[in-house]
Amino acid sequence: MVEANNRHSGEFELIHWIQKQVGSCDQLPVGIGDDCAIDQLPPDQLLLTSKDLLIEDIHFKRAWTSMFDLGRKSVAVNLSDIAAMGGKPRALYLGLGRSKQLKEADLKDFIRGFIYEAKQYDVILAGGDTCGSPGPLIVSVTVQGQVPTGKAVTRRGAVCGDALYVSGTLGDSALALQLLQSGLNLPPHLAQRFQTPSARVALGCFLSENELVTAMLDVSDGLLADLNHLLVASGVGAELALSALPLSEDFRSALNQDPTLIDLALAGGEDYELLFTSARHDLVQSAIPAPGAVKIGTITAGAGLIIRQENGDSYQCRQRGFDHFAAS
Amino acid sequence: MVEANNRHSGEFELIHWIQKQVGSCDQLPVGIGDDCAIDQLPPDQLLLTSKDLLIEDIHFKRAWTSMFDLGRKSVAVNLSDIAAMGGKPRALYLGLGRSKQLKEADLKDFIRGFIYEAKQYDVILAGGDTCGSPGPLIVSVTVQGQVPTGKAVTRRGAVCGDALYVSGTLGDSALALQLLQSGLNLPPHLAQRFQTPSARVALGCFLSENELVTAMLDVSDGLLADLNHLLVASGVGAELALSALPLSEDFRSALNQDPTLIDLALAGGEDYELLFTSARHDLVQSAIPAPGAVKIGTITAGAGLIIRQENGDSYQCRQRGFDHFAAS
Repeated sequence: MVEANNRHSGEFELIHWIQKQVGSCDQLPVGIGDDCAIDQLPPDQLLLTSKDLLIEDIHFKRAWTSMFDLGRKSVAVNLSDIAAMGGKPRALYLGLGRSKQLKEADLKDFIRGFIYEAKQYDVILAGGDTCGSPGPLIVSVTVQGQVPTGKAVTRRGAVCGDALYVSGTLGDSALALQLLQSGLNLPPHLAQRFQTPSARVALGCFLSENELVTAMLDVSDGLLADLNHLLVASGVGAELALSALPLSEDFRSALNQDPTLIDLALAGGEDYELLFTSARHDLVQSAIPAPGAVKIGTITAGAGLIIRQENGDSYQCRQRGFDHFAAS
Repeated sequence: MVEANNRHSGEFELIHWIQKQVGSCDQLPVGIGDDCAIDQLPPDQLLLTSKDLLIEDIHFKRAWTSMFDLGRKSVAVNLSDIAAMGGKPRALYLGLGRSKQLKEADLKDFIRGFIYEAKQYDVILAGGDTCGSPGPLIVSVTVQGQVPTGKAVTRRGAVCGDALYVSGTLGDSALALQLLQSGLNLPPHLAQRFQTPSARVALGCFLSENELVTAMLDVSDGLLADLNHLLVASGVGAELALSALPLSEDFRSALNQDPTLIDLALAGGEDYELLFTSARHDLVQSAIPAPGAVKIGTITAGAGLIIRQENGDSYQCRQRGFDHFAAS
């Protein structure tokens, strides 16, 4: 520690303020304010844990999002990992490294957004840590969830012949980023997908409870990168139908102007959709919870991935994110 | 996200390397490498969780520690929070924001130190996240532990008449910091206390299992600041005997040169000792696990704290860390 005692009264006041925003905490025996939070898992439930860092100018730019929305997104991207296991989120822990530029009002907007989003999923902010940062704003989130014993879905269970599905639409967030980088405004749908993505918790729970999936993960690093993780973990390959990729209207109209944008749907990041395999080839959009899912390919026996165009030719993605794929 | 896909193949290789260092992970159904880790708590155990950020140039300076020791310390300061609840640690989650200056060899030394320290306490590294940092090196740790139902010790249970104890010695780490800031070398004991503090897990478990404590926390922000937390949470006051503060030989010899250093024992940070209250006034050093504990005062009915000198006069601490105390 550089200063023997680097906590100031402001830190403790902030923690008290956060405690008030969280309100009563009946779910937990002990929440914010002790050395640890205490939680009691229901019997026959396993504990799920995931952790993500969000760092200013790496994961977000303050010019492109409100602090309230950044708080919301910090929650959603973590809950997405719980959804990917077929679990139900329980508690969030927040570590905040406050940059010197961050005003107190901004910080409070962030916390309000964080708690707002947590409440949408009935999840409690149970603890964390705050301190100053000599550089960027740092957001560190840990999420805990539960899943009934025997129902957790890992990346490892895909087998040859399984159908490959993805929920929602792909590439919206990456397209939004490209527009922002070009100084353009975002249409509302793309703004929502980029700034306040949803975690597919209801869908993930439905799929695991009904034992419809053999492997699952969330698409955060881009479809191809995350699909590769699933294929490697399961020891299988896949054939993907390029024409089957689910695309939003906004994405399709941009694609009509510039056909190379298809690579954003393949390799762009931050979709926060669920990618899963199933022995069932007949899952239909209407029969599963929002945002639904569509079949985009099939699991094959050999290693590697082939992206098939409608004319039968294979397709090579030119976007970054595919790099480490090519190396494998 | 500033780059649609900000993970490079290096990230995935690093995660594989970390997985190998962790080795077999029999304690957990799923460890590093999926969207979430999966853990199964024994029946009748509650889940404890704590989270700490360590940021370069706020919490540590690379010139003052090896990366191996920084890895060790990142574990110990988190386990200290589990010890403070009377719990036993189970799993660690590590978020790393890598500064541009950080070489791969340094990063690996950090991880080796982290895993080395975790093994001392039979705790597993179960997951986390890595990314680049545009500024300082960022270390975010989440620790989970367990405590038998009904045995957790909070800050809230101190009552008038309880004895106040602290484990180990106070002020060593703050004195070490002062020496480093003056460009001096550290004697081995002070170096150990500053660079590789120990978490008092065995002591915390012993005290809670044997129901010897009414309230407990770990001293990380300085004795006075942390004692204040305990007093406020319990709604009590305390009288502290200045001459009873446990001090190391190194600290005593510095104190002989400069009597004002006593304020470092009162208000310096990073002791990572346990501060606890007990209905028993006869706990003796020899009868409890290392590093033992000594009685330093008594809990009183009124609010506030009096520090009593040997001549009966009250003492006013002049160090920072006492500030927010004076304001209460």
